[in-house]
Amino acid sequence: MEQTLLKPFKIIENAHIDQPKGFTAGGVHAGLRRSKLDFGWINSKVPATAAGVYTQNTFQAAPLQITQEALKQSDQLQTIIVNSANANSYTGEQGYQDAVQMQQLAAKKTGVDPSLVAVASTGVIGEMLPMNLIKEAIARIDENKDADAFEHAILTTDTKTKHIAVEVEIDGKPITIAGAAKGSGMIHPNMATMLSFITTDAKVEAESLQHGLKQSTNQTFNRITVDGDCSTNDMVLILANGMQNNETLHQKHPEWNRFMEAWQFVSRELAKMIAKDGEGATKLVEVTVEGTETEEQAAQMAKAVIASSLVKTAIYGEDANWGRIVSALGASGVPFNKNSLSIAIGSERIIEDGQLLSFHEPNCVEELVKDTVQLFIGLKDGSEKATAWGCDLTYDYVKINASYRT
Amino acid sequence: MEQTLLKPFKIIENAHIDQPKGFTAGGVHAGLRRSKLDFGWINSKVPATAAGVYTQNTFQAAPLQITQEALKQSDQLQTIIVNSANANSYTGEQGYQDAVQMQQLAAKKTGVDPSLVAVASTGVIGEMLPMNLIKEAIARIDENKDADAFEHAILTTDTKTKHIAVEVEIDGKPITIAGAAKGSGMIHPNMATMLSFITTDAKVEAESLQHGLKQSTNQTFNRITVDGDCSTNDMVLILANGMQNNETLHQKHPEWNRFMEAWQFVSRELAKMIAKDGEGATKLVEVTVEGTETEEQAAQMAKAVIASSLVKTAIYGEDANWGRIVSALGASGVPFNKNSLSIAIGSERIIEDGQLLSFHEPNCVEELVKDTVQLFIGLKDGSEKATAWGCDLTYDYVKINASYRT
Repeated sequence: MEQTLLKPFKIIENAHIDQPKGFTAGGVHAGLRRSKLDFGWINSKVPATAAGVYTQNTFQAAPLQITQEALKQSDQLQTIIVNSANANSYTGEQGYQDAVQMQQLAAKKTGVDPSLVAVASTGVIGEMLPMNLIKEAIARIDENKDADAFEHAILTTDTKTKHIAVEVEIDGKPITIAGAAKGSGMIHPNMATMLSFITTDAKVEAESLQHGLKQSTNQTFNRITVDGDCSTNDMVLILANGMQNNETLHQKHPEWNRFMEAWQFVSRELAKMIAKDGEGATKLVEVTVEGTETEEQAAQMAKAVIASSLVKTAIYGEDANWGRIVSALGASGVPFNKNSLSIAIGSERIIEDGQLLSFHEPNCVEELVKDTVQLFIGLKDGSEKATAWGCDLTYDYVKINASYRT
Repeated sequence: MEQTLLKPFKIIENAHIDQPKGFTAGGVHAGLRRSKLDFGWINSKVPATAAGVYTQNTFQAAPLQITQEALKQSDQLQTIIVNSANANSYTGEQGYQDAVQMQQLAAKKTGVDPSLVAVASTGVIGEMLPMNLIKEAIARIDENKDADAFEHAILTTDTKTKHIAVEVEIDGKPITIAGAAKGSGMIHPNMATMLSFITTDAKVEAESLQHGLKQSTNQTFNRITVDGDCSTNDMVLILANGMQNNETLHQKHPEWNRFMEAWQFVSRELAKMIAKDGEGATKLVEVTVEGTETEEQAAQMAKAVIASSLVKTAIYGEDANWGRIVSALGASGVPFNKNSLSIAIGSERIIEDGQLLSFHEPNCVEELVKDTVQLFIGLKDGSEKATAWGCDLTYDYVKINASYRT
């Protein structure tokens, strides 16, 4: 956030996923969960150019399969429907047919072709969807047109909704990019391991949109970890409906970078919200590694630190146990020159050029009690860098996951 | 343990690391910890052929470096000294010199060449050893000749000592193989991530001993995980002092396999004890994967399941949340035919040939409340198999690690 004032886009306060022109969203209580909203939708007034990235888990849930098939047909989407509480994953042929039926019913209800409807599900694996409840919910699309309701309906163990919107001037038009996401458990940086939806009223060429989505996901959603588990259901979708009538954006457009920067910001802030709201988390942890040969190496080291249970528990305990950071870096699989290693916790420098400094422990604790704990790792093997985000590991993580299903 | 009655070796009840002929062991309170024993040694009457495997962490602690150097000189060791509470890791040149001094002082005290002395340390990373206390402790070697004291002295957050011994007849001689280990935190199957010492009175050729150690470590200590962290200090050492005067064993000796089977058993039981006593653990979890093309693939899948925080918390919660097993397998990185997947929790079959069975949930719970929870994964892609061991993830893991250092 620190640099946003300098950036060529502005954050729209209290804005939701329906902020870009021509988008509506809503959510209802389908009855999959006791009382919380559990079924939501996003709708665009016109077909939107769309792109998606999907979990790399071998077991891709049924809704991901049919969403990929839909996108292949025309690179367009107009409607997204989402249910929480049940992942419709590992549900075999019946699960696949259920996802197809969801797509068809939603298409009929919103008056679009089924190939323009994306389906997403999140929740318990291996249980059949109660299709009677799903059907009733689909019939109620448009009943509760409220983007906040959508953002609530997609949550599972999340404690709060995650949404953001920015405005960026492109081709003289006030382009809006908005995002909503859910995270909490099974979050690990191996492809998009959560549900995240991004809407924009920009007109964007399909191939560039897919390229931009891969790039931005790689540097944001793929850089967060809560517990190292990679879910079967997670995806990121972007819909660009072109309602601002800008000259079509593409990778070689002079304003592409400006657009990407705004988009990247939306993705990064959503990713950080997901990490901060990881199951049981009390803190956001941000690890930056600088000075590697490749960005990939920096990312791998940052993710190794953020994924270490011992680092995570030490941060929860507000204990400046930097030895665990050293150990996690050493086990990251990335070779590096140990004599150039520097480590700082916030503004407190611990190690410099491989030498342990006589740091002041209370200063470290001051950094560790913050809502966002920042760790900096410096090397001198190159000029690349990367940041990864995670959270602390707490009693509540165990509590939530020892009793999630039953 | 189930098959031990059929095996050509017998377990010696209540036996310790000093069971093989010519070995003594002991431990004292050096003062590194408040009151617990914290300094131990093993001594062989004669120089023993020895072999070692070491952590793959980039940051190998000083004692590991000097132990490797010692072993390179003659493939022999006669004395091992171990301190707990302080890892002497990331302690730079001073730490290296401290480890060298430990080696020299111990050699002088026990009357052997320094190149026959191994040094091991375990505990907090990045603090200098209080050498005055270490020196006093070394001077007290032989004061408390008690293998149980050794087995206590090497522990950190372990709740109990880990030791076992077996007798196997080789070349008509009653060969004994014994082992002692410490584990608890930073346990992950990426090389030997704990301290483990094995003694035997067999005469074994050096190269075969090193080969056997790698092989047995790969299938036992490298198949356990507590928290996915790979420490800077861990190693497995074996000392074979030949005091039974058997014909020298080597890989082509007709009784080599019988010897390996007994040794493997010692290593496997120690590995299981470490997994079961993982930080905060209430259960041993044993995952067997069968029917892969290679043993490596089976091991990778088994370790992916055992390392999943979501699987571990579900087992702690005694919740038959098999979807998390499916998800962990899918994220393991091993390709497999999904239609031939079978999963069972103990004797309760959940999935067979890719189809979810109508299993009886209370039967699953019956399996999950056991001290040892067994998960079976079946495939039909080949005829290889592997077993991995771990433990559940509990509140106490967080408690122990949020407050370990301070």
